[in-house]
Amino acid sequence: MAIKMFVGHYKDVEEKEVTIEGVENTTIRWLISPKIGAKNFAMRYFVIRKGGKIPIHQHDWEHEIFVVKGEGYITNGRKTVKVIPGSFLYIPPNEPHGYENPDSETLEFLCLIPVKEGSIPPEERGD
Amino acid sequence: MAIKMFVGHYKDVEEKEVTIEGVENTTIRWLISPKIGAKNFAMRYFVIRKGGKIPIHQHDWEHEIFVVKGEGYITNGRKTVKVIPGSFLYIPPNEPHGYENPDSETLEFLCLIPVKEGSIPPEERGD
Repeated sequence: MAIKMFVGHYKDVEEKEVTIEGVENTTIRWLISPKIGAKNFAMRYFVIRKGGKIPIHQHDWEHEIFVVKGEGYITNGRKTVKVIPGSFLYIPPNEPHGYENPDSETLEFLCLIPVKEGSIPPEERGD
Repeated sequence: MAIKMFVGHYKDVEEKEVTIEGVENTTIRWLISPKIGAKNFAMRYFVIRKGGKIPIHQHDWEHEIFVVKGEGYITNGRKTVKVIPGSFLYIPPNEPHGYENPDSETLEFLCLIPVKEGSIPPEERGD
């Protein structure tokens, strides 16, 4: 069966606590992934609650980010930038990156990644 | 020179009127594209002003959409759905799609596409 247009609302997608070591007060929702037919790239919605963070890490896939709500800081270890709603970022493959929300009730952003080896968890693969 | 993290704000990106036949009261901003190093997929920010529309059309690349502001309607010709802030859509390749904003001051959404033959205008290619 051909996969047709898929429409949803992010609040209706399961919000999962990110349990990776060092990550604090952060959730992820997988909005668009191979599971619903997206073969090339995936859209995730992150919420970092006040005081939360994702420590600096890196991997061989890029990020395309758009900040929807709240304020916070994104760093690559050398440079730290403040982000606000409407900020966008391109983080190339293998570039270190970390996130922090010291002040806002929530920092909420979309983060899109390519579908490639290691980037998509089994439950989103749809294979 | 390696391309490093790119940070911007959508309001600082040139807003271009979409001049394709049939499109009314619609602008596009290319936030992330091959020009700044994104080789796999591109992020655009659309604004459809009140009364504006993008008529039904289709092409062989998919869309991943997230509605940031305002309300409107997206159709594939068989089914029309109302979208609100936080709505997201996956539109597969070759699926007809059209957009309309009859009521809101602006309907604003992100629309991401894969980088492939025909999907990226020359000025965003960076080659």
